[in-house]
Amino acid sequence: MTVLATPSAAYTLTLRVELSSSPGTLGRLTTVLGAAGANIGSVDVVSRGRHTLVRDIQVFCRDEAHGTQVMAAARTVAGTTVASVTDRTFALHQGGKIEITPRFALDAREDLSIAYTPGVGRISSAIAQEPELVWDLTIKRNSVAVLTDGSAVLGLGDLGPCAALPVMEGKAMLFKQFAGIDAYPICANAHTIEELVALGVMIAPGFGGINLEDISAPRCFEVERRLQDLVDIPVFHDDQHGTATVVLAALINSARVIGRRLDDLRVVVLGVGAAGVAITRLLLDAGVSDILAVDKAGILHPRMADLDPERRWIAEHTNPERRTGGVESALRGADVFVGVSGPDAVRPEWLRSMGPDAIVFPMANPVPEIMPEAVPPNVRILGTGRSDYPNQINNTLIFPGFFRGLLDARARTVLPQMRVAAAHALADVVAQDGPTEDYVVPSVFDPRIVPAVAAAVQQVQHAASRPVTAAAAIA
Amino acid sequence: MTVLATPSAAYTLTLRVELSSSPGTLGRLTTVLGAAGANIGSVDVVSRGRHTLVRDIQVFCRDEAHGTQVMAAARTVAGTTVASVTDRTFALHQGGKIEITPRFALDAREDLSIAYTPGVGRISSAIAQEPELVWDLTIKRNSVAVLTDGSAVLGLGDLGPCAALPVMEGKAMLFKQFAGIDAYPICANAHTIEELVALGVMIAPGFGGINLEDISAPRCFEVERRLQDLVDIPVFHDDQHGTATVVLAALINSARVIGRRLDDLRVVVLGVGAAGVAITRLLLDAGVSDILAVDKAGILHPRMADLDPERRWIAEHTNPERRTGGVESALRGADVFVGVSGPDAVRPEWLRSMGPDAIVFPMANPVPEIMPEAVPPNVRILGTGRSDYPNQINNTLIFPGFFRGLLDARARTVLPQMRVAAAHALADVVAQDGPTEDYVVPSVFDPRIVPAVAAAVQQVQHAASRPVTAAAAIA
Repeated sequence: MTVLATPSAAYTLTLRVELSSSPGTLGRLTTVLGAAGANIGSVDVVSRGRHTLVRDIQVFCRDEAHGTQVMAAARTVAGTTVASVTDRTFALHQGGKIEITPRFALDAREDLSIAYTPGVGRISSAIAQEPELVWDLTIKRNSVAVLTDGSAVLGLGDLGPCAALPVMEGKAMLFKQFAGIDAYPICANAHTIEELVALGVMIAPGFGGINLEDISAPRCFEVERRLQDLVDIPVFHDDQHGTATVVLAALINSARVIGRRLDDLRVVVLGVGAAGVAITRLLLDAGVSDILAVDKAGILHPRMADLDPERRWIAEHTNPERRTGGVESALRGADVFVGVSGPDAVRPEWLRSMGPDAIVFPMANPVPEIMPEAVPPNVRILGTGRSDYPNQINNTLIFPGFFRGLLDARARTVLPQMRVAAAHALADVVAQDGPTEDYVVPSVFDPRIVPAVAAAVQQVQHAASRPVTAAAAIA
Repeated sequence: MTVLATPSAAYTLTLRVELSSSPGTLGRLTTVLGAAGANIGSVDVVSRGRHTLVRDIQVFCRDEAHGTQVMAAARTVAGTTVASVTDRTFALHQGGKIEITPRFALDAREDLSIAYTPGVGRISSAIAQEPELVWDLTIKRNSVAVLTDGSAVLGLGDLGPCAALPVMEGKAMLFKQFAGIDAYPICANAHTIEELVALGVMIAPGFGGINLEDISAPRCFEVERRLQDLVDIPVFHDDQHGTATVVLAALINSARVIGRRLDDLRVVVLGVGAAGVAITRLLLDAGVSDILAVDKAGILHPRMADLDPERRWIAEHTNPERRTGGVESALRGADVFVGVSGPDAVRPEWLRSMGPDAIVFPMANPVPEIMPEAVPPNVRILGTGRSDYPNQINNTLIFPGFFRGLLDARARTVLPQMRVAAAHALADVVAQDGPTEDYVVPSVFDPRIVPAVAAAVQQVQHAASRPVTAAAAIA
């Protein structure tokens, strides 16, 4: 079970309490709840009796154990009786979070004969004769498979496909809410790279894109590469590229704030899993040339033994000075720290050894590499994966707009330039307002994001797919 | 392209026509449309000018070619100008027929922290610890995969997975509309039995059931059997069992109408594909003992060579008198004809050789084995697959309620007794009103069907899963 430092909406209990009508009862109860460390949300009246009042009290807790303590404390308050406790997160997950909705009703026999037989036979025949029509006459053009084997669910590890399903449902909600995309979870009972690739190939006809999710490294790299080679729809591993693209956007604006250029920064990336590899590759694509990638074995360099193909590539394309050592030595004099490793992996004094105007993104979630409160004063810009601090580096900033662009352009593959363009588009949303130390990425609710990111992706696609036409137009 | 005998809603054109305001113009136009063989639906006014009127005229045609003729005829009418023609079936299919809808909105950061990280992590952890919770806390309990390889799309043949997609979307609409079930199309780029089975196994974690659809025979039998052996959710091939169950229900009520018992009827089944095999097996399960199954090689009997395992089984369990010959000789003196073969496969004089009070279900779709108009007078009860004649034998009468029952019972497999029970439940809906020659199956819009069929399926499941408890209760 993950541990959060502060009470959160994710651990909301609703206490239904009967309180005697005598003055001061509610005050006593809320005092006890506050003393137990809970934050109190809404307080509603459910019903009034002659001498009592029934209230629903929303209480934010830190975690399961804290919730149990808070409830125990509530039960000690004189003049009150806790009638029931509802856990809001569990209550909202009952029966799942998405549903399938017909786009028109089947109220009469006539509707059936259009949506189903015999009318639908005309549509099937038309697609069989002209395969491209599947993009017009079916759900394909707006549909994304969210495909996982549950081998790396959030930061929780290999929980398997059933435990991954609520996460994929949540992802589908985000797709719809932010970009109007119909995404469907495919939680796969699959154990090898071959099985995952075969599954992606088999389900591809019904989708306009595939979002790989929560697949463990290093398997995820090969799954993505091989699947993209075999299908004619774009494949995007969000844990890699979503995160990397937001990091790049945040770095672009951070560089603006401190008045530096990307190609002039020394960057340390700690953690060389799915996200770390993708971040390193994308920063290189975007013009950052001085990167040290660090994992448990230390700074990656080409003479290291036992490197898998991805790390080998990283080792050969980073660390221009061929340095060795751990993260502590890597950080000395560095400008940027990007953490995609684990909780408490970095000490304040190491950050203090960085340059002035240091940019620090400890993104391990929910507990970062260093808590923001512990960061030394030379750190000028700080971003985390958390929503309770400024500069939340959250891949929800990218994947909805990125897929909106892919689908609208009817892209058949993801091009690397799309990620650089999407990062610039996201950064430019902030640039419109002027970036500051506390504002290097926008809020996920900023309505400018999806159109901007989608347009950037479409533009790359159009430029890539029309070289001949463009040449012809010039001639 | 299939050909329909009569104009149908499946071929609706909407003609936007500018008519001069002089009297008689609309009359001339509708006369010409009628003479061209079109049926006229709604006639609406779109706008009025000084000397003209713009109308939308809905015109039902037989097929594509007929539509072209009708449009050509419309263009000849003096005082009218056809401004545009819209094909309603194509218009309604633009962008597909289903969408994914969040069950609650993500309007604030707090909603995100419940539906997605960090809150969703608690749900994933809970399921990882107690796997059965996936049935409560995710979409699984109400979700059905509609799985096809597009190898037998409607009666149109092997059109492939993309061309199958509009049919599967239509199926998903029916699931939702009639039974509140969230069904999702999985149109598979799969070519072998092994691939289809592997795919079903891989996607199973996210679904509460699998509806196999439009998979060609004899592959479908092995796919269903092997998949059901490997997954812990029910697998139902609708083309087999949906059709068979409705045929049994229709036969139960037909026997009531003519005052006969099922075990006293001689039944001829023409066509031994997916539906024919399932019908024969189900009729045997329901107590019909005298069945002749006939395919292109004639009446199946055990000494036939080259029988695949399914036909071998049928040959050994039917035809008690070991008869040989074709469908013509099989029909002589028979009581029931069930056709699941192809258009115009049966002649009127062959039906005339059946017994009095003959029951005839020519179900090839859209063109039956014999058109209802051609049936001789000894045929007392007639049912087809078509909606434009009485007694439509339509599997939409079964699959929504059947899956509703499976899901609500959390059944892990389909039991054969469920099909017999579902047929009786469907027949009993009609029996409440009293069956007649023209009313042996209910309308698909009858609201009593789904609850009745679902209850029958659940009852079988509960009886099967609680033998020990029942014994304990008795002791």
